Amino acid sequence: MRNSTRSNVDPFIVMDVMEAARQAEEAGRHIIHMEVGQPSTGAPAGARRALAEALDHDALGYTVALGIPELRKRIARLYKDWYNVDLNPERVVVTPGSSGAFTLAFTALFDSGDRVGIGAPGYPSYRQILHALGLQPVDIQTSPENRLQPVPADFADLDLAGLMVASPANPTGTMLDRGAMQALIEATHAQGAAFISDEIYHGLEYEAKAVTALELTDDCYVINSFSKFFSMTGWRVGWMVVPESHVRVVERIAQNMFICAPHASQVAALAALDCQDEMRENLAQYARNRALMLEGLPQAGFTKIAPPDGAFYVYADVSELTDDSRAFAREILDQAGVAVTPGLDFDPVRGATTLRFSYARSTADITEGLRRLKSFMESRR
Amino acid sequence: MRNSTRSNVDPFIVMDVMEAARQAEEAGRHIIHMEVGQPSTGAPAGARRALAEALDHDALGYTVALGIPELRKRIARLYKDWYNVDLNPERVVVTPGSSGAFTLAFTALFDSGDRVGIGAPGYPSYRQILHALGLQPVDIQTSPENRLQPVPADFADLDLAGLMVASPANPTGTMLDRGAMQALIEATHAQGAAFISDEIYHGLEYEAKAVTALELTDDCYVINSFSKFFSMTGWRVGWMVVPESHVRVVERIAQNMFICAPHASQVAALAALDCQDEMRENLAQYARNRALMLEGLPQAGFTKIAPPDGAFYVYADVSELTDDSRAFAREILDQAGVAVTPGLDFDPVRGATTLRFSYARSTADITEGLRRLKSFMESRR
Repeated sequence: MRNSTRSNVDPFIVMDVMEAARQAEEAGRHIIHMEVGQPSTGAPAGARRALAEALDHDALGYTVALGIPELRKRIARLYKDWYNVDLNPERVVVTPGSSGAFTLAFTALFDSGDRVGIGAPGYPSYRQILHALGLQPVDIQTSPENRLQPVPADFADLDLAGLMVASPANPTGTMLDRGAMQALIEATHAQGAAFISDEIYHGLEYEAKAVTALELTDDCYVINSFSKFFSMTGWRVGWMVVPESHVRVVERIAQNMFICAPHASQVAALAALDCQDEMRENLAQYARNRALMLEGLPQAGFTKIAPPDGAFYVYADVSELTDDSRAFAREILDQAGVAVTPGLDFDPVRGATTLRFSYARSTADITEGLRRLKSFMESRR
Repeated sequence: MRNSTRSNVDPFIVMDVMEAARQAEEAGRHIIHMEVGQPSTGAPAGARRALAEALDHDALGYTVALGIPELRKRIARLYKDWYNVDLNPERVVVTPGSSGAFTLAFTALFDSGDRVGIGAPGYPSYRQILHALGLQPVDIQTSPENRLQPVPADFADLDLAGLMVASPANPTGTMLDRGAMQALIEATHAQGAAFISDEIYHGLEYEAKAVTALELTDDCYVINSFSKFFSMTGWRVGWMVVPESHVRVVERIAQNMFICAPHASQVAALAALDCQDEMRENLAQYARNRALMLEGLPQAGFTKIAPPDGAFYVYADVSELTDDSRAFAREILDQAGVAVTPGLDFDPVRGATTLRFSYARSTADITEGLRRLKSFMESRR
């Protein structure tokens, strides 16, 4: 039995880093984890409490495909609270994580062979999911001058059926301001292409508020999740906002591909929306960690970093230090005891000379990690 | 923004039935639900207890993509316990429900345009997911003489890249015995096609034990779930067994498309595997319900039924009563207060003259439903 061509998906290089870190820990070494893309905290207490109660009295069978109606309404209210956008709850689709939303969006919008633009560097699964669905990911090489975000001139000639953007982005943490987002939406629509905005890191922003595409247009798909700001990665629950005219189509695909998002996770998510104070304590910790990173990384010698507007990442250009980020990350793990992610997962071309540092873990870990990085870099001179 | 061709997925007709039933209930009528495809019971008590404990002390972040290692091992042991098959736990992939497993299997095995055979009647989402992935579902019209299951002669000329079978099947409840399964595997492999066995209703069998494809070959994909026997539909956790040489490929697709199955559901599923006694009480109830159905349906006038070997469905040929199953189901709902599923969801061709009756609900409901059906049919003569 042979595998399909579309199943030929790239490995995650960060998985090798994580495995090497695990082996080092098994051998007794202490490792600081700056490679991880998730909070170390769990779901908010109120979310866990709500589920514990539901476990006693609710069979937690299938929900309707679009999600529990109260949850859809409550998510719509978040757009009023966060962005002053009036959103019809009927447009909200609860999904099995943002991962499920990507599959739904790509399936609803694109046909085999369609070209979909994604920024490089960017979240690797965009490319891999598009490929696995028989669609054609098209890397848009972004510039440091544009905060490593795409601009209209980058894709004017690319004949795209869709454009996917992320703000704040992974791995860079950079954001699109209102003007930049507006320009991208207009250029995409001018091509007759679909605009998809990944807003999974919204709420994790430090200097300016992130802009949702829904402030600017209804003619877009917006994807978000409870994984990051609400600290619920393993729960696999997210959402998508689609144009009113697309709701029925997305519902039918969701009925067939997922039946529904996990019921228990939907119960927890509904309660999490009322736990924003607890989440802002996590945010305050990320803010402290970020300040430490912005001071400590340049001191250690990582001076060329993308503006870390949001999320919990710093993306560094290390081209003056290496042309093999994978070997360099391994060296940092072996010699400094700090796990970091080589840029190759995010940018197959230029990622050989970049690294991603995550500051999602405890402040004590960040302090110690920066100390180790500094001492490692000094020893290397 | 326009939708893709692949997003043009058929609606579930049963959803209209469910909505009509809901409206009738809202208007004060009492409805018996023979349209549902899920147990009315929740997850086993031990599973809910295990999760309640985990909620207190575990962050429940991402798991590895293939699933919690103990869960994979425990699932492998199920094959020893249930079928006396020695299964390498490395071959077990924990998935977001059998739905996630279908997407993983189809992606791992097939390329755009590939033809995949599915039995008609059959679970409608096979067809819709294949279509949504840009693949080509090929209906195999099955015969009552073959228990409405495909046989090799049915697809000898169909140029298939894969064959998907289900035993016990939805909507018919019929099973493939060892010889029938063996013949299908051989004929599929002789075509150079991939063999996929949907075993989601295993454990819900009444006269003979269901045969797993793994008793006969390692060169297949086997899909199962905690939704039916373990009564955990809304948890979205299932599994798939793949050939050893496919594990890495499936892992990479799963990393990108799902990240992982819901962590909380995996914790509950692991404990559920030790709650089989509780599950057998549910099974005893289904067995009582089935006996009532086998007596009551023919008495009411539904005499042409497929052999209901397993699952919790009876599939009836009502061609002598109607050529519009949708209208007939509506008539039964309106006049008898019993919700049933028209066959059109399962078989676009012959489903206009078939109905599916589910006996997953309480025995009291089944008794009352059969009484109503009998009286309805008498009034119709």
